[in-house]
Amino acid sequence: MKVVQCVPNFSEGRNLETVEKIVSVLRNQPGFQLLSVEPDASYNRTVVTLLGDPEAMMEPLLAMVGKAVELIDLNHHQGEHPRMGAVDVLPFVPIQNIKMKECVAYAKRLGQAIYERFSLPVFLYEEAASAEHRVNLADIRKGEFEGMKTKIQDHLWHPDFGKPEIHPTAGAVAVGARMPLIAYNINLNTDKKEIAQAIAKTIRHSSGGLRYIKAGAAEIKEKGIVQVTMNITNYQKNSIYRVFEMVKMEAARYGVSVLGSEIIGMVPLEALTQSMEYYLGLTDFSAEKVLEYHLIKKDE
Amino acid sequence: MKVVQCVPNFSEGRNLETVEKIVSVLRNQPGFQLLSVEPDASYNRTVVTLLGDPEAMMEPLLAMVGKAVELIDLNHHQGEHPRMGAVDVLPFVPIQNIKMKECVAYAKRLGQAIYERFSLPVFLYEEAASAEHRVNLADIRKGEFEGMKTKIQDHLWHPDFGKPEIHPTAGAVAVGARMPLIAYNINLNTDKKEIAQAIAKTIRHSSGGLRYIKAGAAEIKEKGIVQVTMNITNYQKNSIYRVFEMVKMEAARYGVSVLGSEIIGMVPLEALTQSMEYYLGLTDFSAEKVLEYHLIKKDE
Repeated sequence: MKVVQCVPNFSEGRNLETVEKIVSVLRNQPGFQLLSVEPDASYNRTVVTLLGDPEAMMEPLLAMVGKAVELIDLNHHQGEHPRMGAVDVLPFVPIQNIKMKECVAYAKRLGQAIYERFSLPVFLYEEAASAEHRVNLADIRKGEFEGMKTKIQDHLWHPDFGKPEIHPTAGAVAVGARMPLIAYNINLNTDKKEIAQAIAKTIRHSSGGLRYIKAGAAEIKEKGIVQVTMNITNYQKNSIYRVFEMVKMEAARYGVSVLGSEIIGMVPLEALTQSMEYYLGLTDFSAEKVLEYHLIKKDE
Repeated sequence: MKVVQCVPNFSEGRNLETVEKIVSVLRNQPGFQLLSVEPDASYNRTVVTLLGDPEAMMEPLLAMVGKAVELIDLNHHQGEHPRMGAVDVLPFVPIQNIKMKECVAYAKRLGQAIYERFSLPVFLYEEAASAEHRVNLADIRKGEFEGMKTKIQDHLWHPDFGKPEIHPTAGAVAVGARMPLIAYNINLNTDKKEIAQAIAKTIRHSSGGLRYIKAGAAEIKEKGIVQVTMNITNYQKNSIYRVFEMVKMEAARYGVSVLGSEIIGMVPLEALTQSMEYYLGLTDFSAEKVLEYHLIKKDE
């Protein structure tokens, strides 16, 4: 059986009743599992993780998009995370017995159906992108919901599906296919956002830091702290431990300590074994030393 | 399907041709996987890990014991690890869809067959033990091959299967059933065995240290170092990171540093997630955040 991970992000993380209405259409469906639902109040955003047969996901995903379009109005949305739509982003990730180009095909099918059913303009991104300048999600989303009203009229930013105008309340959505990434946040013992921003700038590839790291800053108001919020887009090349230790090292410049960290969504086993190797000085360690690795379903 | 882990240890870790002759009968068998074969020259011992249906393992295990009895002579065996037999110990560990008492039944069946086929006396240990004083493997093995010649005549130490006399070249074997344990060794940057011994004494439960930790000292002559060699018998109560950090802390008393560590055999996923939580200050982390955990075969 083909297995993908699908990680829709939608723009509601405070009203948990609304969150539940949106995800309820994904519960107890045949062919895939709803692995996690992670609402974040500061981000005002929820990350959902599905695992299973992409064919089985199609209709429930459309139902989820429909619920989000119905219940979220971006004109009244504030949060720490950049966003351009009620459903902001929806990537397919190949996990088992499936190729990237099949995930691209699923992204295109879903994107087309989203426009046809909900008149929501769709951008294809990462491996599904239709042009080089539309690969990176942050480039597509730049300007966010508010700026997208005019940006989408520029022929460079016409959507892949739909007319060059945003949905009045639900904005636009990015649908794509990509390799697994790790969404990783590190909490700092300070409320000064400029410190998190300075560290993010040092860490991220776009400003000269570590390759395969995207980083920004966010305030966690309910805790009175800030965090460096990151995506590790290739965990085989840059591990969690390295990012953690580098942020700790840079934070020391400001007399700030690291309070801890959090992984949003799922983490591949290999990313754990790399960090264990580092901290425990393990030799000859790998995912194959983990008992559960050998209990995974394999094709006959 | 019932899944057990079976971890036979036999007393040859230097002659790799002999090791291969002994394990070859376990390769490519239906119903179970040969996960690892780990010969250790200093210990002069090999740890084998099997995973799968215990029923399918029975005949291949007997063939392995037969090969070890044929090829290993304990009268000419030296090594850093205590041992009493050609096959020294053979535990069954319940993993999936199987109860401990069924593992005990498999241990008894195999023990009886080992005696009947090879005239090798068998002690049942841990959950399969026939008396309280025979639960702990170290108590049974005390005196090792050389001391067992007379010890076995004592009615307290008559074997569970066989006459009260050792096999002239293959000694005796302990067969049992137990919960998963982690075999974990930490290398010290010194060749002074007394330092590893002093640290082992501080760490292990029997001398007043951490509960669920067994520890001893071993010389790794080919590297000119010593190691603290441990079993973590309940990794849910005492984690790898805690043992590692405590050994590091104690080693500092002697001006000795920790070079690294190694896990022998398999490690349960949960033991990794605990250590990751500690080192990265992770919140809400567990095995369920690991993608592969959700790909494990479950019963329908």
